[in-house]
Amino acid sequence: MSVDIVRNGGITEITLNRPAKRNAMTDAMWSALEEALTDLRETRVLVITGAGGSFCGGSDVSGLLDDPGSLPDRIAVSNRCVLAMRELPVPTIAKVGGPAAGAGANLALACDFVLAAEDAYFAQLFVRRGLSVDSGASWLLPRLVGERRARELCLLGDRVGAPSALDMGMITRVVPADGLDGAVTELAERLHDLSPAALAGTKRMLNQTWQTTFAEALNAEAANQVEVIQSPEAHTAINAFNVRRS
Amino acid sequence: MSVDIVRNGGITEITLNRPAKRNAMTDAMWSALEEALTDLRETRVLVITGAGGSFCGGSDVSGLLDDPGSLPDRIAVSNRCVLAMRELPVPTIAKVGGPAAGAGANLALACDFVLAAEDAYFAQLFVRRGLSVDSGASWLLPRLVGERRARELCLLGDRVGAPSALDMGMITRVVPADGLDGAVTELAERLHDLSPAALAGTKRMLNQTWQTTFAEALNAEAANQVEVIQSPEAHTAINAFNVRRS
Amino acid sequence: MSVDIVRNGGITEITLNRPAKRNAMTDAMWSALEEALTDLRETRVLVITGAGGSFCGGSDVSGLLDDPGSLPDRIAVSNRCVLAMRELPVPTIAKVGGPAAGAGANLALACDFVLAAEDAYFAQLFVRRGLSVDSGASWLLPRLVGERRARELCLLGDRVGAPSALDMGMITRVVPADGLDGAVTELAERLHDLSPAALAGTKRMLNQTWQTTFAEALNAEAANQVEVIQSPEAHTAINAFNVRRS
Repeated sequence: MSVDIVRNGGITEITLNRPAKRNAMTDAMWSALEEALTDLRETRVLVITGAGGSFCGGSDVSGLLDDPGSLPDRIAVSNRCVLAMRELPVPTIAKVGGPAAGAGANLALACDFVLAAEDAYFAQLFVRRGLSVDSGASWLLPRLVGERRARELCLLGDRVGAPSALDMGMITRVVPADGLDGAVTELAERLHDLSPAALAGTKRMLNQTWQTTFAEALNAEAANQVEVIQSPEAHTAINAFNVRRS
Repeated sequence: MSVDIVRNGGITEITLNRPAKRNAMTDAMWSALEEALTDLRETRVLVITGAGGSFCGGSDVSGLLDDPGSLPDRIAVSNRCVLAMRELPVPTIAKVGGPAAGAGANLALACDFVLAAEDAYFAQLFVRRGLSVDSGASWLLPRLVGERRARELCLLGDRVGAPSALDMGMITRVVPADGLDGAVTELAERLHDLSPAALAGTKRMLNQTWQTTFAEALNAEAANQVEVIQSPEAHTAINAFNVRRS
Repeated sequence: MSVDIVRNGGITEITLNRPAKRNAMTDAMWSALEEALTDLRETRVLVITGAGGSFCGGSDVSGLLDDPGSLPDRIAVSNRCVLAMRELPVPTIAKVGGPAAGAGANLALACDFVLAAEDAYFAQLFVRRGLSVDSGASWLLPRLVGERRARELCLLGDRVGAPSALDMGMITRVVPADGLDGAVTELAERLHDLSPAALAGTKRMLNQTWQTTFAEALNAEAANQVEVIQSPEAHTAINAFNVRRS
């Protein structure tokens, strides 16, 4: 039972590792994930995945009814992880090889890219356990798939297979199971070779978009660009572009 | 000319009943609907539909030009109905067997689920009558089908057939006309058997999502969950889940 | 190198005209466009397009690295154009016959309608030049195509062909290249014949939707309607409707 971290150059891969329980997260695992997400200094791209064919079955709820007073703390740590994932300044990729349920689904959906195996699925199964949605579902889903499908998914808790999830805009790409590692590596390497300042600036703008008017967004993007253009990568890329076009 | 209410266990069905005018709503009908929506104490699932093959042709505008000063009051009551429909703590299903136009379309679209017969259609026909959109169209459509399609629908007022409406995420499901009642009943019964506290909590979160940051949504969901988990349904469901998985 | 304006009755067509550089916009061209957008008094429908098969390659970045201090002013004028385009009270149509990249893509996407030739494409290529997104991309794309696809497009900068852009809700319609002029003319004439008050009122509501709660939107729509119904077009249209239905 662990959260494993492998660093490979600028690409960091975090693996949720409790395959006998579909990687359902104990409090200790959430804490380990939180720590991992706050120590990514050399990382340019983050990949998160699950061991043994599942992505993550959500928070482990065994023991919860014996100690209901623990709920606020338990939700707090999982929420901090989902929020930290979303606010990382580097691009994030969820590699989803199998079931992603409850908080496990939302941890994946909070990433910038979600690549899934053909037989993976996503389930907001809260309502099926008599619970209300949490871990960001009510915020993420309407913005990913629109109000109508978000309501269906949250109020019924049905599984959505990866191909349907792709059709409705919930995820980025579906690949055959044996091509998933390769597809994620290829994407991660591509992101690794882009300008970190440009990616961080773009993410910052995307992360705040729902709190801004169009005019405010234009101003924020302009202020952002004034900083980003001072990066060496911007100079190199603009020079290359101008040479190509001249 | 009436608004009919049938209660069947915890499932309440409201029928807009003026089939000779495609169930176009008079002021009296809007008032009757408003009253019905404020008296749903035993209801666990609400279904709304129209009599005689149409859903609802919108507000009856005959007489409006003879008495333009009545417009504010007339819009006020229809707006209160659309808002009440959206804010109900129980799941709502629009059963759309035929045309849903103007305020009639938006009354349906404000529901959590919209099931439509194959030859039903939706039309924001305001602009075709020289009017601006109302009854919530400008808010609902961008969040259902995205900015691009929302602008096309609102600025042109064209009919959208049920299959196209499904493709663009406006509605939940399309069924053959003779299967519509059965499909709605099946969905209503399924929702009836879920925890009212979980459904109400989930709706509350979905209804406020566009006013919150991601961090605020996570906090609100957590506070909500602390209440919902005290419901007997949560205990039963979590126990059943733990037994199944152990 | 120019921005050309042709007025034909109430339909104004603006052409970005620098075909040797894919209509990449110099500061002077942005200023000319800004002036054109503030002088549209007789216009009922605005069409914007590019000369020579391209739509617009974005802002011309040659010379930028020699004078980086000019960036704030350069972004300011292009931002004012994109914002003005979005806030025009008349319907706007982008006629996209070929590449639309960077600020050129977002100038098109800020229009109400986007009609594109089959081999046109859209590219948020900022990140490929080491730059952060600007010209409204971070605001427009999540609302057009959802969070997931917006992140992919902004963080990778790939081209999206017109058919894919249509599938994901980014644009309104795809037509064969030799039918593009005709399709735009037909749409422009149709919009020209609708009530300007109804169209302006509807656009005002759509433009402010992301800053309002549902209740606020209902109230704003009602207040708006009280004004719009006083227009002669509303009277004519409602009368015609009542005659038809009686």
